[in-house]
Amino acid sequence: MTSDDRPTAALIIIGDEVLSGRTQDVNLKYLATRLGELGIPLREARVIPDDRAMIIAAVNELRRAWAYVFTTGGIGPTHDDITSECVAAAFGLPWEPHPEAWELLARDYASRTPPVEFNAARQRMATMPRGAELIRNAVSVAPGFRVENVYVLAGVPKVMQAMFEAIAPRLAGGRPTVSRTVHAAGAMEGQIAAGLGAIQAESQGVALGSYPYYRSAGGGVAIVARGVDAAAVDAAAEKVRALFRALGLEPREGEPD
Amino acid sequence: MTSDDRPTAALIIIGDEVLSGRTQDVNLKYLATRLGELGIPLREARVIPDDRAMIIAAVNELRRAWAYVFTTGGIGPTHDDITSECVAAAFGLPWEPHPEAWELLARDYASRTPPVEFNAARQRMATMPRGAELIRNAVSVAPGFRVENVYVLAGVPKVMQAMFEAIAPRLAGGRPTVSRTVHAAGAMEGQIAAGLGAIQAESQGVALGSYPYYRSAGGGVAIVARGVDAAAVDAAAEKVRALFRALGLEPREGEPD
Repeated sequence: MTSDDRPTAALIIIGDEVLSGRTQDVNLKYLATRLGELGIPLREARVIPDDRAMIIAAVNELRRAWAYVFTTGGIGPTHDDITSECVAAAFGLPWEPHPEAWELLARDYASRTPPVEFNAARQRMATMPRGAELIRNAVSVAPGFRVENVYVLAGVPKVMQAMFEAIAPRLAGGRPTVSRTVHAAGAMEGQIAAGLGAIQAESQGVALGSYPYYRSAGGGVAIVARGVDAAAVDAAAEKVRALFRALGLEPREGEPD
Repeated sequence: MTSDDRPTAALIIIGDEVLSGRTQDVNLKYLATRLGELGIPLREARVIPDDRAMIIAAVNELRRAWAYVFTTGGIGPTHDDITSECVAAAFGLPWEPHPEAWELLARDYASRTPPVEFNAARQRMATMPRGAELIRNAVSVAPGFRVENVYVLAGVPKVMQAMFEAIAPRLAGGRPTVSRTVHAAGAMEGQIAAGLGAIQAESQGVALGSYPYYRSAGGGVAIVARGVDAAAVDAAAEKVRALFRALGLEPREGEPD
């Protein structure tokens, strides 16, 4: 997608559990999809461990490189939850009790039956970089937060999604990414590559991706046309359909089953 | 996991389809798990688009930072498959027909019924950084390749896995990572955090991760102890069981259902 001047985003997925293979990350796909809809293309994602130096370095590198940075993971009450203090360090800010978060959590724990102790571990979830703006959400009482262009979200997908949807209306994006997918059973990438490359060359502002698929009933290729100009994307998709037909293949809409 | 002197790895996931949300990556989890078994902890993963400058920069940064670098994606025959030429550029090597790969592909296409044309697009899959070592595999005739410490693998999971397993026996690793998981229904992270932190502090060489889980029948917390010293990992897991019991929680082995 050439000459794409929309605001961009990067994602930092923080957690030993993803890098050890224990946990299958699903936050990238969710955020990538939603950011595309909001006109904020996700340009890079990094998965890093619960490691202080690596978190600080990634936050500082990416917040300077992209318009928005989102982090997931590491904001709970246990010793391995170090994202919050690392974001403070990255910005050179004190990491201290956040009055609003503190009151929120203290009140919530006191209101439970039986009341839950607002102990030192839970107080860590109300300790934040000075001046952080809370990201409240409907699923979890513990909030995420924002410092400048860095949005610190939970790792648990349901909580992460609730936090993201709470801030989504306030994110300034560009034109949404639109995409069209056409696939053809029996197609081989080596067969369509030349024609597809020619279509790409004449489709400015559209990115054509070619993705072979494999099914027990036989494979094929799916072509995805993406861009911000719906007419240009549609025109490219129509050329892909014509290419498939010219090769004796039947174009079908959307992803293969 | 302090004082871990094992060889390390990084993964570069290359593909617009992952960053757009179209495709759920599953290669990270597979490689993370297998590398852990081989004693080569995965320390970082990056997801980047089919973008020449970003691929070259990531390859050059990570191959200097870690013992092994694996890439997935972008080695097919279509215009968006640019990994191979970017790896050549990263190393300052010519990108040229690879005699062995060329013969392999030419022979394979000629042997099919009916024969398949070894056209310019397919020839791209036999064009590699000079001196690359092929990574052949049982699933796909098109090979991956290695240049120094960079292993270039396919993006399609089945093909990626076959390529990885072809090279796995030759990867020099350290002691395998061992892990024990204990979980307790009804546990809350804020309740166990202090005790868990104390166990972490006295468990040198063991990394304790705390992961809340949510089920319709009610949630809990799973604790994962990881390290290379099985006795130390077992001892830490036993302390976690005792912690759960001391709090009136019933420790159960492994991940929750």
